[in-house]
Amino acid sequence: MRPYVHKVNYYECDKMGVTHHSNYIRFMEESRIDFLDQLGYGFDRMEAEGIVSPVVAVECNYKKTTTFKDEITIEIKISEVSTLKMKISYTMKVQGKVVCTGVTTHCFFENGRPAIIPERFPELAVGVGNTEN
Amino acid sequence: MRPYVHKVNYYECDKMGVTHHSNYIRFMEESRIDFLDQLGYGFDRMEAEGIVSPVVAVECNYKKTTTFKDEITIEIKISEVSTLKMKISYTMKVQGKVVCTGVTTHCFFENGRPAIIPERFPELAVGVGNTEN
Amino acid sequence: MRPYVHKVNYYECDKMGVTHHSNYIRFMEESRIDFLDQLGYGFDRMEAEGIVSPVVAVECNYKKTTTFKDEITIEIKISEVSTLKMKISYTMKVQGKVVCTGVTTHCFFENGRPAIIPERFPELAVGVGNTEN
Amino acid sequence: MRPYVHKVNYYECDKMGVTHHSNYIRFMEESRIDFLDQLGYGFDRMEAEGIVSPVVAVECNYKKTTTFKDEITIEIKISEVSTLKMKISYTMKVQGKVVCTGVTTHCFFENGRPAIIPERFPELAVGVGNTEN
Repeated sequence: MRPYVHKVNYYECDKMGVTHHSNYIRFMEESRIDFLDQLGYGFDRMEAEGIVSPVVAVECNYKKTTTFKDEITIEIKISEVSTLKMKISYTMKVQGKVVCTGVTTHCFFENGRPAIIPERFPELAVGVGNTEN
Repeated sequence: MRPYVHKVNYYECDKMGVTHHSNYIRFMEESRIDFLDQLGYGFDRMEAEGIVSPVVAVECNYKKTTTFKDEITIEIKISEVSTLKMKISYTMKVQGKVVCTGVTTHCFFENGRPAIIPERFPELAVGVGNTEN
Repeated sequence: MRPYVHKVNYYECDKMGVTHHSNYIRFMEESRIDFLDQLGYGFDRMEAEGIVSPVVAVECNYKKTTTFKDEITIEIKISEVSTLKMKISYTMKVQGKVVCTGVTTHCFFENGRPAIIPERFPELAVGVGNTEN
Repeated sequence: MRPYVHKVNYYECDKMGVTHHSNYIRFMEESRIDFLDQLGYGFDRMEAEGIVSPVVAVECNYKKTTTFKDEITIEIKISEVSTLKMKISYTMKVQGKVVCTGVTTHCFFENGRPAIIPERFPELAVGVGNTEN
């Protein structure tokens, strides 16, 4: 899997001259969409199959500030799959140094009903600890 | 009509410590929605009637910078109504001094077809120069 | 303490018609700034005293979606103060129902050096469990 | 000069499923920064030389909607240089079709005083109609 790169825009920096902390949540979304596309679970396919996958939680730990023009490389993996929830972990680096880590939690609805992830999306569960919810 | 007030948020300021210029476009939208609500042309009514009203153009002239915690008072008026387009003008002030002026241009679609504004929305044309498009 | 209210803007909603999840991080910042102002620890005073207080972590749990024009009332409290870190908790409600909860973690730097919070800001530690970091 | 490409992010789309109109102002900034970098007038050099260049006006004409994952190619040129102001024009295309055009107007301050653009930045005036302000 190819890591995602976000180059920090001028309008993403705040009065302190650093990337505003809320923007990392958006960078996680960008990288997640890219990752799911690479996995073959892009929005188009999900939408065509009547699936929506809301974010139910986010966590973000800021390690170092970043700023305008920094290239943030985002490594991503599915870190946990339970019956109803999937967790994705993010490691964001600038020039090899970790600047931020994060986790998002997702569930899946198919035609309005919760999907049993290990049954409906077995590929997502490959390679992660498959725990009960 | 009661003017709209936007208090500048921390995350709306940029590296120079001033409100990022793109945000004024959003402040115009906020005040326009408030204004149309006050006029009785809120989104709810428009949506219920099958009307959408895209922004076809924006102009914004920045006169003075603003910053975190500034209270921007936005005065708004319909400045022009032609057959197919409506222009709205904005004057934004902080403590009585003009900081920014703007104009947005809108058209209206009803069930996918362009609406003739002076016929369909005669109230919007009251008090403005009624010109041909 | 007066709770903070954020009325959801049109531009804060996404393709699904709901408030984009990244925006809640911004709403937490808005309410935190308002809260610290009410406590007498506003940005102006902090800046004048050479203090900066970065966000070191955020957590956000989305319970219900919100949308355009919803008024989100945000209750906030300092939930933990240790030697070097302060945690703030947020409960966001629409019409009395919890839509989102969150926690942010902060440290303080005074003239570039970490501040010992219970010594430097004893008022912040009042009424919370005072634990070691 | 290499044109700039912005791929529309999920969080840049609004309730109507299209790129929110305020975001094009940000795309113009992204492409302008890239363009000035290519010209050798990047922020780093400007900052090092004590120059700031605020945006004094923006105009944007929306021709077609764009949406999530669209790749917007932005062609840019300096369209006018007068004594105190520079205008930059933008043409944004998706798959060869114009979706939006825009103009931004800038002035330059050097150590707090307005700069005479054709004298101070003669390279910027090359190839455009050099008019009086």
